[in-house]
Amino acid sequence: MTRVGVNGYGTIGKRVADAVAAQPDMELVGVTKTSPDYGAEAAIRRGYDLYAAIDDRVDEFETAGLTVSGTLANLLDAVDVIVDCAPSGIGERNRPVYEAHDTPAVYQGGEDAAIADASFNARASGDEVADADSLRVVSCNSTGLSRILAPLDEEFGVEKARVTLVRRGGDPSETDRGPINDVIPDPATVPSHHGPDVNEILPDIDIDTAALKAPVTGMHTHSVNVTLDTEPSTSAVRGLLAEQSRVFQIPERAGIDGAGTLKDYASDLGRSRGDLWENCVWEESVSVEGRDLYLFQNVHQEADVVPENVDAIRALVTDVSRAESVARTNEALGVGLNSLLADGGTGEAPVTADD
Amino acid sequence: MTRVGVNGYGTIGKRVADAVAAQPDMELVGVTKTSPDYGAEAAIRRGYDLYAAIDDRVDEFETAGLTVSGTLANLLDAVDVIVDCAPSGIGERNRPVYEAHDTPAVYQGGEDAAIADASFNARASGDEVADADSLRVVSCNSTGLSRILAPLDEEFGVEKARVTLVRRGGDPSETDRGPINDVIPDPATVPSHHGPDVNEILPDIDIDTAALKAPVTGMHTHSVNVTLDTEPSTSAVRGLLAEQSRVFQIPERAGIDGAGTLKDYASDLGRSRGDLWENCVWEESVSVEGRDLYLFQNVHQEADVVPENVDAIRALVTDVSRAESVARTNEALGVGLNSLLADGGTGEAPVTADD
Repeated sequence: MTRVGVNGYGTIGKRVADAVAAQPDMELVGVTKTSPDYGAEAAIRRGYDLYAAIDDRVDEFETAGLTVSGTLANLLDAVDVIVDCAPSGIGERNRPVYEAHDTPAVYQGGEDAAIADASFNARASGDEVADADSLRVVSCNSTGLSRILAPLDEEFGVEKARVTLVRRGGDPSETDRGPINDVIPDPATVPSHHGPDVNEILPDIDIDTAALKAPVTGMHTHSVNVTLDTEPSTSAVRGLLAEQSRVFQIPERAGIDGAGTLKDYASDLGRSRGDLWENCVWEESVSVEGRDLYLFQNVHQEADVVPENVDAIRALVTDVSRAESVARTNEALGVGLNSLLADGGTGEAPVTADD
Repeated sequence: MTRVGVNGYGTIGKRVADAVAAQPDMELVGVTKTSPDYGAEAAIRRGYDLYAAIDDRVDEFETAGLTVSGTLANLLDAVDVIVDCAPSGIGERNRPVYEAHDTPAVYQGGEDAAIADASFNARASGDEVADADSLRVVSCNSTGLSRILAPLDEEFGVEKARVTLVRRGGDPSETDRGPINDVIPDPATVPSHHGPDVNEILPDIDIDTAALKAPVTGMHTHSVNVTLDTEPSTSAVRGLLAEQSRVFQIPERAGIDGAGTLKDYASDLGRSRGDLWENCVWEESVSVEGRDLYLFQNVHQEADVVPENVDAIRALVTDVSRAESVARTNEALGVGLNSLLADGGTGEAPVTADD
């Protein structure tokens, strides 16, 4: 049983906490919060032990009527591994604290790659992650790209990938972010950092990325072009993607046209928070012209890295193989969407969190 | 055991279906869909019997791989009551069908008041609903206003209510609606129809409403002014609202600033779809100046009428008292939010759908 702590109970942290708590081979020891807001209340209501992320704020929680079990230092002493889910850049400040406690750490993609011994994606990382004492789960966008580029390269060979990322401006609760009513090149320089971040996982893939941000909160949208080494049929590519457990191909007849309907569908299936852990690829967009593959996919920025964090924990502190870890994570969470509407109703039986 | 059918499995219908299925004294016989999209798939995955809302479309479902149990006529023959959750205006077209089958019907607030014997709100309706053979649950906005105006009138007397409604442009899945990047007087004439609709429930309340629509999908926002007959203290009003089981007062320290965080909080508490069945009133906005009360409240347009539909079913076809019905509905669904952060942590123990 791996004892896990989650430092930071925000958008990612609360989902990682739920995912860890759902694993039969893991124990969620506790989570931290910097202040006693609704998120802290929710942690307590879920039965999670709450720790003050900042030492001198224990009284603030108690005054608000929320009981804390201690501070971050106490949590670090009680766990085998800490998952840092602090805002971007704070992980770097937390690293010396984890090291002082000799606690292996999983970081998020908002940190520089140098924060950890290796960057991590369960489908695409090489064997170098096995020896790492710390891991960094790459960002939601890099996760989504790695998941499709790895199998495409293995099966058809990738000569070059060119991707335009239309990123969401903020998460649904981030009301103070922009843009409003505009689409902003961000950065206006090309390539963006996303390509190099994918190369932290797949160093041999030639990839350029161009990034925009849009006034939406639901999901990121990728317009993907991959020039392949070979000329597979469109159906061969669709078939390959259908084999990936963390890629969901949206059937045309489902009537799902964007992030709103995708999350509505996820909620309809009983998924907590309407989360989509899988890349969501519009099946009819998957098109091959000569050696050029095109597709649109959506990536749920709040959710797709969550199963990757679970697998990173196992990679860091257990001997469980990567494939076995992915299978366990998928099983425990219900990762792996197959629509009944695919192929005229011959889709596989669904796997949902309720099963 | 009351056998219930739901005609129309969209935004409201799927929530009413879930709510009916959760009642110990009701049986959800089935739901209808007009076409085999992701919503129809989701109904089947939830284990609900699916009926074709339009007779000649059975084949279309079968071709898509979705099994239907029959048509609307078959469903009507098998139920004690039908809840019409068709789009606005379609309920009027459905009424003769229900009447031909002698099936009592609950309609939604998108229909004209004349469609049913009486309009309905569980907290505010008078005794006239007891004898009705059909009921119309008033719209989400009228529901939200009735829930606070009834107790305010009973306790302090309402001389006049003036409300500005900043309405959401569409639901999260309605990507083809506006406005984008504007706030539109809608209608530009004042008063809007909302005041008269409240008068269908509370005929003696003097109320004027002015309505706008905004480019948001989360919730409606009401800026409420009520001139009272008396001069209660602010805390007396807050206390009265705190007693209403379907009104949630948001504590200032929770850090909840809008619809995004409200729905995030609801999801954190494990609520399916992040639904908020309660009016959400910002506690610090509740202010009394002389006889003038002011407050802001949010109304979740997808959810607040759902418990009202359940109570309307009981009012229509059972002898269960209104108060008893409300208690049963709240218990079965987990309606009734009380934040642990209210009053320095002395809030009541939470009631959530997971309990």
